Order: sequence, then structure tokens, then C-alpha cells
Amino acid sequence: MALYSGVSLNIPDTSKPRVVIIGGGFGGLYAAHKIDTDKFQVVLFDKRNYHTFQPLLYQVATAGLQGDAIAGPLRTALKNKKDFHFRLLRVLSINEDKNTVTTSIGDLHYDYLIVANGCKSNFYGNKLMETYAFPMKSIPDALNLKSQLMQTFESASMINDPERLEKLLSIVIVGGGPTGVETAGALAELRKQVLPKDYPGIDFSKMHIYLVQSGDHLLAGMSEKATNYAYKDLNRMGIEIILNAKVTNYDGAVATLSNGQTINTFTLIWSAGVTGDVISGLKPEWVDRDKLIVDEYCKVKGSKNIYAIGDIASLKSEKYPHGLPGVAQPAIQMGKYVAKNIGKFHNNEKVAPFRYLDKGSLATIGRGKAVFQLSGNRTFTGFFAWFIWAFIHIAFLVNFKNRIKVFFSWMWDYFTYDSGNRLIIRPYIRANDEVAKQIIEENDY
Amino acid sequence: MALYSGVSLNIPDTSKPRVVIIGGGFGGLYAAHKIDTDKFQVVLFDKRNYHTFQPLLYQVATAGLQGDAIAGPLRTALKNKKDFHFRLLRVLSINEDKNTVTTSIGDLHYDYLIVANGCKSNFYGNKLMETYAFPMKSIPDALNLKSQLMQTFESASMINDPERLEKLLSIVIVGGGPTGVETAGALAELRKQVLPKDYPGIDFSKMHIYLVQSGDHLLAGMSEKATNYAYKDLNRMGIEIILNAKVTNYDGAVATLSNGQTINTFTLIWSAGVTGDVISGLKPEWVDRDKLIVDEYCKVKGSKNIYAIGDIASLKSEKYPHGLPGVAQPAIQMGKYVAKNIGKFHNNEKVAPFRYLDKGSLATIGRGKAVFQLSGNRTFTGFFAWFIWAFIHIAFLVNFKNRIKVFFSWMWDYFTYDSGNRLIIRPYIRANDEVAKQIIEENDY
Repeated sequence: MALYSGVSLNIPDTSKPRVVIIGGGFGGLYAAHKIDTDKFQVVLFDKRNYHTFQPLLYQVATAGLQGDAIAGPLRTALKNKKDFHFRLLRVLSINEDKNTVTTSIGDLHYDYLIVANGCKSNFYGNKLMETYAFPMKSIPDALNLKSQLMQTFESASMINDPERLEKLLSIVIVGGGPTGVETAGALAELRKQVLPKDYPGIDFSKMHIYLVQSGDHLLAGMSEKATNYAYKDLNRMGIEIILNAKVTNYDGAVATLSNGQTINTFTLIWSAGVTGDVISGLKPEWVDRDKLIVDEYCKVKGSKNIYAIGDIASLKSEKYPHGLPGVAQPAIQMGKYVAKNIGKFHNNEKVAPFRYLDKGSLATIGRGKAVFQLSGNRTFTGFFAWFIWAFIHIAFLVNFKNRIKVFFSWMWDYFTYDSGNRLIIRPYIRANDEVAKQIIEENDY
Repeated sequence: MALYSGVSLNIPDTSKPRVVIIGGGFGGLYAAHKIDTDKFQVVLFDKRNYHTFQPLLYQVATAGLQGDAIAGPLRTALKNKKDFHFRLLRVLSINEDKNTVTTSIGDLHYDYLIVANGCKSNFYGNKLMETYAFPMKSIPDALNLKSQLMQTFESASMINDPERLEKLLSIVIVGGGPTGVETAGALAELRKQVLPKDYPGIDFSKMHIYLVQSGDHLLAGMSEKATNYAYKDLNRMGIEIILNAKVTNYDGAVATLSNGQTINTFTLIWSAGVTGDVISGLKPEWVDRDKLIVDEYCKVKGSKNIYAIGDIASLKSEKYPHGLPGVAQPAIQMGKYVAKNIGKFHNNEKVAPFRYLDKGSLATIGRGKAVFQLSGNRTFTGFFAWFIWAFIHIAFLVNFKNRIKVFFSWMWDYFTYDSGNRLIIRPYIRANDEVAKQIIEENDY
């Protein structure tokens, strides 16, 4: 059913069963890549035309890498597949009885559906925070934050009231997981190595970087050694770490913490909770805390032919009572698993259940510093861990050209201390300081 | 005078005379770079925080290069200057009697003013064309056009009415100068080498690329050999060249030509006329056709201490009765000239008049093809000319890192036929086909 005349999804009907994948993140991309298109037709829907390498979004936000370097067009990534069809679309709903998905262009029948549309930032219903906080889930998010930071420094060069300056320069990072830790480290390095050269007139001792973590240690889930190393190093770099506190409100100017503290800031970065983005039409009993409950075959429990992979899937086990970690590896492994076995599912053959292979956890703290923890709890810190971190991140980038770009950028950065991506091409207009706002609005970038 | 409390331009008062430069394009950047800051304080105002390498904008628009690769932060480019101050600001007016410029933050006194704010697209007062045509003067312009093109192809994959498809895919380029010729060549190569792989379902024989030129030959001002080569090659690449015609109207859906022809298109690229962007407060008698009349010392005729360089300056001579060409070289040479001689101007010493040294003209037509004309009319075409074109463009990029990036991108492109920058990060929402518009608006990228 097409909504407009002369328009249709234009997916050819073949005798092969059709697999529809929603979302081109890690899970969806690997699934699409691995499904045998001699036996199945594959249709991929995404509302963006590119795959985002989310683990490096923080580098885009802190002017370390260009947005394009960590993204690859989905069509290009999958151009060698024969009966593969990408459509740039929003999926509106799923009709499980009819085996169809409804998109903004029309309906499409599926034989198998793989839901891989991931998570979004969770503000726990606080609309004010949702309006004013900077999420870090997409490239536009990261570019908005970069512009906000760069505009802040430009404005700061024209502000001489010390209190106003301190408020403008202060940054709050919410969430002490890998993204929060990595963002804090990158901002500390910008403050030390780069900004004083670009803005000789600004007193950067007025720039506070707060890292607020709800638990009693950073990098929850990692070993004590990793946790302690991150804390010590960030502390040494001048990050003001606030443990055992949550940000309970933020109105664009003042962040209120659960410990009663308040912080004046125009830049609050949200790297705390996420929530699944469950598409309408799926049965309520399939959903647990905004995620789709899947069995050990990654199939949505109770459904006939719907699989869920990656962040949107809730796969609980004895080893992972809260589900798998919301990082790239589980999504990649689930995507590959479903793709590899879909022929057997189709023929009702026996399939070994999915097993998540923990390849270890990684977080970088700054230039030449990282923590790397193997699945057996063995932990490496410092330069060696950073080298592994860099190597793995480059290896998993979506295409060869991006690997070269990122490698070159990091080498350049390593030797020059200057990343040089500090362009305000996409201005961000939501500053709350009346003055900063006027400066920004009166000047079109 | 500051407009807000606690806010000021924060430019230190010194005993040195102050040179204020408006605009960080080729002229302003070279002037700022070359002025001796031991003798003068230099203040640079721009509404963007980066310098744009305009000759390669067409490559950003056609997904050949990333926007960041042809831009460099102005602060970084000039960070080694001592008494140099950049402010991200819009200049509102100039008060010639008081020797001040008024900005959105406040006024600033100057001893010397260098006006280098360039040109904008000239739609000759046609508001409809201004609304719907795609200009090519800035990186945001080029990124908008890239998104429009990529969104067009995504929409086209879902349109099966042949007439609607033809209208959606057709592109009109207005102006047969270097930018128009280079854009046409790049689009023809995308159509031939790249798009059929990305969009196997689209019939690209329906994609027309029109190049409309008001005169009777392309690349006006270049030799007959260059002109003929460009015509023949673009023709061979399937560009539909329309000579001796102007686009007189464009409403976002239909372009009307002065020869009576009409073309259905949603993408009309404006690489025709430009007009100077004269800042208010300057005397009307200083202005000729929206440009500032300067004498042979680049001084605005009749002014005490105001210089104008680059596109905004009108410097007519016997050899150049219509003024210097609106390209990078005159701007660079004027910027260097004023910077080098400002000490002598200040001391009322004798200065040799400015002489423009024509280093030749260049335009590329496609991969490995270009025309290169020396000042003496000697013309080279083909691969050698392309090699010179590439070498010169890389050599003049704003920083070393950009030179490596562009060199790498071109080498990659040359050997793979795939530039891979086809990401829609900055969606463009002004499509006029009702269907394309709905597709775009209903899907947030």
C-alpha cells in the first residue's frame, strides 16, 4: 500500500523469503552483511543513510575527529550484496498478525523481521533535562555539542565578568561509564593543550569540568584496578569527580544534584542512562523496561518470526542477570548469529543457542592512556592499553577509508597535540546565558 | 561601548596603531598573516570561525571532499601572531568620521581598516530564485546542496512514475564559469561511476544535467582552446549545455530560460553572478556596482585610512577595464600588498602601486582532465593540466593537515572511483516535489 501515487517502496517480489531489518547500527549492519542473499531477500530500513561508529562519538564532540570519519554510507557498506535493498525511512509500526511493517511510504510484508533500532537517551521523563542536556547518541548530537563548546569559547573571549565567565566555561558530564570518562579526558586535554593557544585571552582556570557518577566508582562493571586508574588519572588531569550523586534536574542554566549540590553550567552532557525505542505494534508482554525480551536464539519471546538484536534486546542469563552490556560487541555477535542461522530457523533445523563471548572492556582516558580489561578480569593500564584501544577501534570502523582517516588523525594529534577540527559549521543555538545567546543569534555562522 | 554588561570586545589598548580586518577569506587571511604585529595590532572579525577554500566548494557539494578538508579555523591559522585578536562577530556598520566599526558586541576604534568581506550570490533582486536556488559560496551552502542531491537519490529509489522521476533527478547549473564547469563535470562522473552502484534500482538515463551559460562559450575569459576543450569534454560526458541563455525565473520546480525553454527541476545550482556585500556607513560615492572603488594602492578612493581587497574591491585598469577577476589570486596578492606596505602608508613613505600578476587560469573538468591557461594565453589541456590543477589547489590549502587530507582523498578517489562522502548529516528540507518533501519531512535524519 503506497501513501502517494507514483510512489512505492519498490522492493521486488521474489520467491525467496524476505528478511526486513530495522536499523543499521552494529547489529543491523552485521546481520545485513552476513545473511545469505542467495536464499533470502534482505531489506534494511534506517532513518539515516549511514552507519555510526558510536564508540568514537565523544571524539567528534570534542573536535578530535570529523563526523564523516566515523560514519559510512549504508549503501556503500553493503553494495556488493545482490538482493539487498536499503530504504531511507522511518518505520512507524509493526503488524505482527499480518507480518507487515508500516513505513512512511507504505507497508511491506516480511517473512522474518530483525529489530535492531537500538536505544535513545533516557531522561526518565524529565522534559526540561531532555530539552537542555546534550545527548551523545548520534553524529548530529556530537556536532551540536562540538558547536556548543566552540561557541562557548568564542563568547568567553568577549566576557569579562568573572562569575559569568565561570558559568559559561563550566561543563557537567553526567554518567561515569566509558563515554563519560572518555569525554572528560578529552575535554581536560583540550583545556590543557589546545584552548590556551587558540584563546590566549581566556583564563582557563575558570573552566571546571565536572563528572557526576551515580555509583561509588567510575566505569561500573570493570575491575577495581581499571576503576582506580581512571579515577586517579582523571583527578590528576583536573576533572572534578562527584561520586554517589545523580543529576536530578537541569533547566539549561543550573544543574541540581541529588546530594543537594548545584552547578551553574550551560553545557550539560548526558552520557548516563539509555532506554529502548520500542516500535509501536509489538505486544506489551514482549517488552521489559523498554526492551524486547528475547530467548537464547535472539527471538522475541512469544513471537513467530521476529528477532531482536543489540541494545533493543533484553537477553538475561545467569552470567548477565541484567542483560548484556549496551556496547558494540553483543550487537555485532547477535547480528552475526541471527544472520548465520536464519536458514536453519527457516527450515526448522536445530540451532545452538546464542552465547555472548566477552572480548574484554576498554576505555581511553587521554592521549596514550587507557584501561583494558580482559574477560577474565585481567587488567592492563597505560600506554599498552591505549595502543590496544586504538588498534581495536580502528579495526572495527566501517570501511577501509575511515580506518586510514582515523589512524592519520590520531597520529597527527599524537605528535602535534592539535586536532584542528574546531570549525563551527553547524551552529548550535540553545545557549541559555542571555549574552551568549545574543552573541550567537546575532551572528550567522 | 558594550551592548551588554560584563561583555566587551576585550581588545587590549596598546600604543601601536590598530588595523581592523573585516573578513577571513583569501584577502583578509593573507593580510592578517603578513602584517608586522611588532608595529601594528591586528584585529580580525568574521562571522565564521574558519577560512573557506572556495575553489573546492564544488567538490564538497558533489561528495568528493568533506567540508572540514577545505576549511581551517582562523585562530589556528594565525595562532603564532602575537598582538593578533580574532572575534567571531558580524560587523554592523562602519563610522568613517569617528574611525570606528560597530559590531554586535560594541564599537571598536581603528587606525586602519581593511575591508575584505567578499561577495555574495547575485540574484538580481529575484526573491523567488534567491529562496529556491542553491548558491555555492560557503561550506553550509555546499553541504546543503550535497544533502539535497543525496536525498534526491534516496527519494528517487521509491518513485516509479517516470515523469516524476525525471523531474526529481534533473539538475540545472546556472553559469558556465569555472565553478559551473567543475560542478557539471563532477556530477557527470557521479552519475556514471558512483550512483548506479549505490542505487541499482534507479534508471539514471532519466537524470539530466543542464549547464546554462549566458554567453556563447564556456569559461569566459579563457582561450578558445580551453573553451573548446571544456565544451567538447562536457558534451561527451553527457552534459546538456545551453549557450546564449539566462535563467530568468525559478520557483523551486520550474526553471524559465530567456530563450523560452523551461526545465522541470528541484535542484538549481547558482554559480552565476555575485555582488559585493557593502557594509553600511560607507559613503555612496565610494561604491560602484556594489563594490568599493579602490585606487592603485588598494585604498578606497576618497577615504583616509580604509583599504579594500579581494572581491569587494573594484580596481579597474587599462588591462582590466571591468576590474580584476573574482578569484583567489587577486585577493591574496592585494592582501599581501596592503600588509607589506601598511608601515609605509603609516609613515607617508612612497609606495609602488599594486600590480596584479596573472599566474594563469585553471579549471578541472573531471578525473584527470583540466584546462590550464598561462597568462600569455598558452593553454594546456588534459592530464598534465589536471596535474597542475591538483598540485596548485593542494599547495594553497590553508594548512598542512588539509593538504594531506585532500591529497589522500584525491588519490583514493582516483584509484577507487569512489569518494564515499555521501552522508546526509545535515538534512536539507526545501524540496518542492510534494512527495519528495513528505519523504524527507517524515524521516528525521
